[in-house]
Amino acid sequence: MEKANELKLKPLGIDTHHEHTIYMRDDCPVCISEGFNALTRLRVSYGSKTIIASLNVLVNDFLLASDEISLSENAIKVLGVKKGDLLTLSHIEPIDSMSAVRAKIYGQKLLANHFQEIVEDIVAGNYANVELAAFITACAGNNMTVNEIIYLSKAMITTGQKLNWPQKQVFDKHCVGGLPGNRTTPIVVAIVAAYGLTIPKTSSRAITSPAGTADTMESITIVNLSLSKIKEVVGQENGCIAWGGSVQLSPADDKLIRVEKALDIDSDGQLIASILSKKIAAGSTHVVIDIPVGSTAKVRTKQAAEELKRRMSLVADGLGLKIKVVITDGSQPVGRGIGPALEARDLLAVLKDAPHAPSDLKERSLHLAGELLELSEEVNAGSGYFKAREILESGAAYKKFVGICLAQGGFSEPSIGSFKQEIKADKSGIVTKIDNRRLAKIAKLAGAPENKGAGIDFFAPIGTDVKVGQILYAIHAESTGALEYALGYLDSQENILTIK
Amino acid sequence: MEKANELKLKPLGIDTHHEHTIYMRDDCPVCISEGFNALTRLRVSYGSKTIIASLNVLVNDFLLASDEISLSENAIKVLGVKKGDLLTLSHIEPIDSMSAVRAKIYGQKLLANHFQEIVEDIVAGNYANVELAAFITACAGNNMTVNEIIYLSKAMITTGQKLNWPQKQVFDKHCVGGLPGNRTTPIVVAIVAAYGLTIPKTSSRAITSPAGTADTMESITIVNLSLSKIKEVVGQENGCIAWGGSVQLSPADDKLIRVEKALDIDSDGQLIASILSKKIAAGSTHVVIDIPVGSTAKVRTKQAAEELKRRMSLVADGLGLKIKVVITDGSQPVGRGIGPALEARDLLAVLKDAPHAPSDLKERSLHLAGELLELSEEVNAGSGYFKAREILESGAAYKKFVGICLAQGGFSEPSIGSFKQEIKADKSGIVTKIDNRRLAKIAKLAGAPENKGAGIDFFAPIGTDVKVGQILYAIHAESTGALEYALGYLDSQENILTIK
Repeated sequence: MEKANELKLKPLGIDTHHEHTIYMRDDCPVCISEGFNALTRLRVSYGSKTIIASLNVLVNDFLLASDEISLSENAIKVLGVKKGDLLTLSHIEPIDSMSAVRAKIYGQKLLANHFQEIVEDIVAGNYANVELAAFITACAGNNMTVNEIIYLSKAMITTGQKLNWPQKQVFDKHCVGGLPGNRTTPIVVAIVAAYGLTIPKTSSRAITSPAGTADTMESITIVNLSLSKIKEVVGQENGCIAWGGSVQLSPADDKLIRVEKALDIDSDGQLIASILSKKIAAGSTHVVIDIPVGSTAKVRTKQAAEELKRRMSLVADGLGLKIKVVITDGSQPVGRGIGPALEARDLLAVLKDAPHAPSDLKERSLHLAGELLELSEEVNAGSGYFKAREILESGAAYKKFVGICLAQGGFSEPSIGSFKQEIKADKSGIVTKIDNRRLAKIAKLAGAPENKGAGIDFFAPIGTDVKVGQILYAIHAESTGALEYALGYLDSQENILTIK
Repeated sequence: MEKANELKLKPLGIDTHHEHTIYMRDDCPVCISEGFNALTRLRVSYGSKTIIASLNVLVNDFLLASDEISLSENAIKVLGVKKGDLLTLSHIEPIDSMSAVRAKIYGQKLLANHFQEIVEDIVAGNYANVELAAFITACAGNNMTVNEIIYLSKAMITTGQKLNWPQKQVFDKHCVGGLPGNRTTPIVVAIVAAYGLTIPKTSSRAITSPAGTADTMESITIVNLSLSKIKEVVGQENGCIAWGGSVQLSPADDKLIRVEKALDIDSDGQLIASILSKKIAAGSTHVVIDIPVGSTAKVRTKQAAEELKRRMSLVADGLGLKIKVVITDGSQPVGRGIGPALEARDLLAVLKDAPHAPSDLKERSLHLAGELLELSEEVNAGSGYFKAREILESGAAYKKFVGICLAQGGFSEPSIGSFKQEIKADKSGIVTKIDNRRLAKIAKLAGAPENKGAGIDFFAPIGTDVKVGQILYAIHAESTGALEYALGYLDSQENILTIK
């Protein structure tokens, strides 16, 4: 006989992302018993598998029969259930690790075991978004000690997968905060791997930006590689440029970062833990970290960048990771393209050392590659940049890049969206300031990164002397609908470029 | 012609409570453009009305056609739309007042205008639950100054409705934190109104407890009164005991409080602002505040209660409200019943001064009523309790209570749920401790407060000498399903009562 708290699953195809959600009719006994307080959470079990889900209530009876419930897509996947399976619902006890979060709110310092318990609960999906928000807020500002950041990093590492490499030295690079078009990674990997260092680069897809390195690379090659495929490519070519999603290096961070971005709360501690934990989990030993500084970049002042560098270096020491932090100019987009295919076009131009290649993208890439070469101690301090340039200009880097792409599964030129609108200057003058955030927003509304060919082609860097009617940038899209949506936003905006 | 960002509404009957949610197909242009990051927010407009809603995505096509979207129930209500109406979607800019929240996170003190802007955005529904959680966390602990609490209270008052009374002195009482069965309010109102003071009591329904005063009263009379009906009842009887929901005294607080309870974060500042803002908005001038202290009550130590009293008194001074804070014993349930009808039975027994009436409920009520009488300065200090007892024992309070009920719309004896399970002692000894929180949980799982007759009848207060097999309490429900669900929880629990 069915129990009062057993109901049949009927999938409705509702994707709520990582917060599991359960849909129940308002007349079902469990629903009545639990009450419905917007944030009611229930345990849902199937066999030995169990998840915690937030309750949404159906006030009509046409979606579910009285003996049915539904779950969000990800909950269905995690439980491994299908239509008709009988799920058991039960009440949940308060989550123990939330008392550590409360202690943190009250200003106490947390210990290693506290962070371990919190991060384990986050990975298990036991925290609702509001609880993630409370943890993030409690740790925000400069509210974490160096030791706390080390504990958080270690907890993130132990709760995820870890990669191992036969090489003693494994290199990586990371850029803090999005600068549109700043696609140095593929170029740096190609140079460094061509030199002979091991650089198994796994990159993320965009979360709130118009393109992540993985999105950009996907317009050229295959990035969705299994761990064994990654090892094969690196064994053959010294490096790879793959999507990190097939390996779960820090599943806790993946959940935290989405809430952090939604809140737009800066948290040095969580930023440092996020970056360094993923590097260590990926098996890296030597990492160059790029912090672009600019009024519309993630880090806005030189002083904030220096403080971030200082704390990041202390945490890296505590974790036994060798890092070099470089602070760079983040006042404007890098290269000309913003969006996967447009950025891919730029990086290929640099790798081919084409005369029209964006020189800023080339210089930044050489600078970072040089730092990595020096970090290996195989190249003397001060000569890394020149070594990197030699490798690039000789064609060795391009050859290596194509080799990596072919090893990953193929190489093709990127294809740019054919629906296009040019945006022209409404007055003459010098471009003095660029709002990176709003430019990125336009590229996204035009469809980037989901539509690989969508984005912005940008022609007016700071200092450009423009005339009325001159093209400042072009918006590309893969459909008229997306182009229209981006233009609708643009209509409501002023001074994305300041011309004086 | 329809625009890319115009879609037809199809209601699906999904209730997500106060966080507006929008459901879109994953293949719709807006959905692709915005990207789906779990916490994507969109503006939804219909005519001049506009709301902000969180995006959920439908991966199947059987719920919505390609030109349709759906909204959560409350969003439909707020926009005033129906099936087939054409809604416009647009991108939202970051919410300005969140920068004040971020400043607070960084340890800055906020000013009156900051709280005003934050509270206005909360009332407008511009904050998602994660943003409410960040604000609550930033203000939690003892992280607010007395001035900040005053600013928050004032912002809550100005963004809600305000009641006005012709009387110069208007009385009220409030109990901080749930103590199961502690239903003194109707008794206190009856005594005070019988004496002749004005006490227009509006009470809340339960949020996370098994019964609010409004739920309890609803098992006896009608509590869902319009503002004009409330005024009529008070004009006639000096007092009322109505549900506060028909008047929006502090709509911001209603949203904050649900997230606070979900997080179980104590925030003195928000608690004080919540209580005092509602009293002032209700037009009260003289208020007695009861803080029960116990290990499973909201306030757990005498010291915490004293500190809360101190800060609350300072804020009340700043707001020009006359209050008296009394700290009482919160170690166990009050009366015998937990749940609307069971609590109603107890309070009627006290009002009738029946020999079997719970003496603890009677004494607490007399004590609080006495404090209110003294606060009026019409009764001398030290004699309020005796005056209150005189009014109760003379039958004047019961007569007044019935008068109020009749004026509100009727009077009937409460009806207790007929599905019942008695819980017996598994050993002999003295009851030394009671877990109020878990007792409340059982009452809720049995169906309280939605099912008025559900709850717990409690027979073993602290100090009771029990024998094996003696009935400790009985669980009442209105259906076998609910009774079973409560018993399922009980099976997993130990030591709700400690017997030594």
